[in-house]
Amino acid sequence: MSADPTFADVRAAAERIADRAHRTPILTCRTLDASTGQRLFFKCENFQKVGAFKFRGASNAVLCLSDAEARQGVITHSSGNHAAALALAARMRGIPATVVMPRTASRIKREAVAGYGAEIIPCEPTLESRETTAAERIAQTGATFIHPYDDPRIIAGAGTAALELLEDVASLDLLLTPIGGGGLTSGSALAVSGLSPDTDLIAVEPAGADDAYRSLRAGRRIPQTDPRTIADGLLTSLSERTFRLIRAHAREIVTVSDDAIVGAMRRIWERMKIVVEPSAAVPLAALLEEKIPTRYRRIGIILSGGNVDLDHLPWTEAAPR
Amino acid sequence: MSADPTFADVRAAAERIADRAHRTPILTCRTLDASTGQRLFFKCENFQKVGAFKFRGASNAVLCLSDAEARQGVITHSSGNHAAALALAARMRGIPATVVMPRTASRIKREAVAGYGAEIIPCEPTLESRETTAAERIAQTGATFIHPYDDPRIIAGAGTAALELLEDVASLDLLLTPIGGGGLTSGSALAVSGLSPDTDLIAVEPAGADDAYRSLRAGRRIPQTDPRTIADGLLTSLSERTFRLIRAHAREIVTVSDDAIVGAMRRIWERMKIVVEPSAAVPLAALLEEKIPTRYRRIGIILSGGNVDLDHLPWTEAAPR
Repeated sequence: MSADPTFADVRAAAERIADRAHRTPILTCRTLDASTGQRLFFKCENFQKVGAFKFRGASNAVLCLSDAEARQGVITHSSGNHAAALALAARMRGIPATVVMPRTASRIKREAVAGYGAEIIPCEPTLESRETTAAERIAQTGATFIHPYDDPRIIAGAGTAALELLEDVASLDLLLTPIGGGGLTSGSALAVSGLSPDTDLIAVEPAGADDAYRSLRAGRRIPQTDPRTIADGLLTSLSERTFRLIRAHAREIVTVSDDAIVGAMRRIWERMKIVVEPSAAVPLAALLEEKIPTRYRRIGIILSGGNVDLDHLPWTEAAPR
Repeated sequence: MSADPTFADVRAAAERIADRAHRTPILTCRTLDASTGQRLFFKCENFQKVGAFKFRGASNAVLCLSDAEARQGVITHSSGNHAAALALAARMRGIPATVVMPRTASRIKREAVAGYGAEIIPCEPTLESRETTAAERIAQTGATFIHPYDDPRIIAGAGTAALELLEDVASLDLLLTPIGGGGLTSGSALAVSGLSPDTDLIAVEPAGADDAYRSLRAGRRIPQTDPRTIADGLLTSLSERTFRLIRAHAREIVTVSDDAIVGAMRRIWERMKIVVEPSAAVPLAALLEEKIPTRYRRIGIILSGGNVDLDHLPWTEAAPR
């Protein structure tokens, strides 16, 4: 858990999860290319198991456990894609998974996690209750805690999406990722530095949850308080580990408004005919808003996930944000 | 225009359009396989140019014209995917396209067709006005009329989707298509009979527009009056030509309710993370409603298109149908 992950860890993760995770397709779209004047390559992690890249890291973490550790199960606190991913990864190894989830989490999120066979322990919607609840269970069962992003196994697993993209598409000038806690960006940075060091990496962040942007400018970690964005996968703050990795490798952080995110999400649905969640649309938002230098000609984009509530789409809601 | 198309015509169409149309991917989904207990292979024509298989036939028809014919342009009456497809196919050949469209057509449909460069001539929303308006323009310009489905070039082009699916996936027991005017089903029937005669073909039709079902039972063509279904690509009736081809080749026609269509469409969005229009979900609706014999183990499905109005999704509407 201590040492920072390296490119070798990403490579090892790719081998480890090869027969569990999908090697997702890479789609292109001439209409979007024409809109931006660049050539875009979309790595479709919305097609990944559980509908998000998170399955890569969760699967890697679960497979890294010794048999003795594995028998005692895994536990996390999350109400999003990481929880569903850990639940499925545990089920595939045949071990128990527990998810500590605030009582306020939506029924849809609870059902998604329960549907993959995890036990859900409700807690109060506070950091303290979450951590106490998890600690109690760990004391009882000896389960291994798997953090959503501040974990070398999770970061290495997350990096396998960029690894595949760089293997499949030659000569990318730039790789774009959305950034929340920084696991995907950190793992992607390792993949780029190991496989394609001439490719630049830029992370894109919602303006309403811009701790990574502010942290990189300040040269020290500034955690987010009161994040507000429709990109609900990107509410979390960098950890010391992801801050360190991103500072070493990412060229810059760019921020985009929620309106730009919703617009980009809709363009992807309309033009590419695929379902992506708001967080996944964040990099395209930066391109459509002309926040990415035009010197980049061939651009890879990680579409991080596709889990949305189809009853409440951002463009059909009154959207009081 | 007279002789019925054959398998050789489908083959020729595939060569003719190879560098214009996408060879669309075939997706699978373990969750849907588990729901039906069968192995499903989805041919993703929602990813085709203009977002529908219709581009295949339109492109084939436009490329079949002599240079002299082509110079005078093409014309059709349609407010749906065929109109957009013909507009783009004409633009790619550099010839004019005209679309006669009822004044009542939605702004979205008009803009889609105009966006591909076709001239739109508005008419009254009656069959007579539509035909008179088209005839007047043809008399003026000598443009070639391209019917949405009652045309051997359109049928042969439509068959190339099934041809690719049968080439890419071995040993299909069954191919399922949605059916409206019968162009896609006729073309698919030719592909099956030529390439994989042991594969059965079943067409699935909305119960509210079931002229093909009733026609096959009666042994004579019974055109639809007052069709009512959410599957707006399937409102049209068989022509004598498509009736003949389908009677010769299709095993049966199965009908499904609009509720089943909406449910299947939502399952595809949620589970496969792709955007499909109601018409495309009609075959899966039949499977989920257990209207397809379970002896079929490996089933190909043509997902016919992905053009929907994202502001008005069937499950978020009050849906007064």
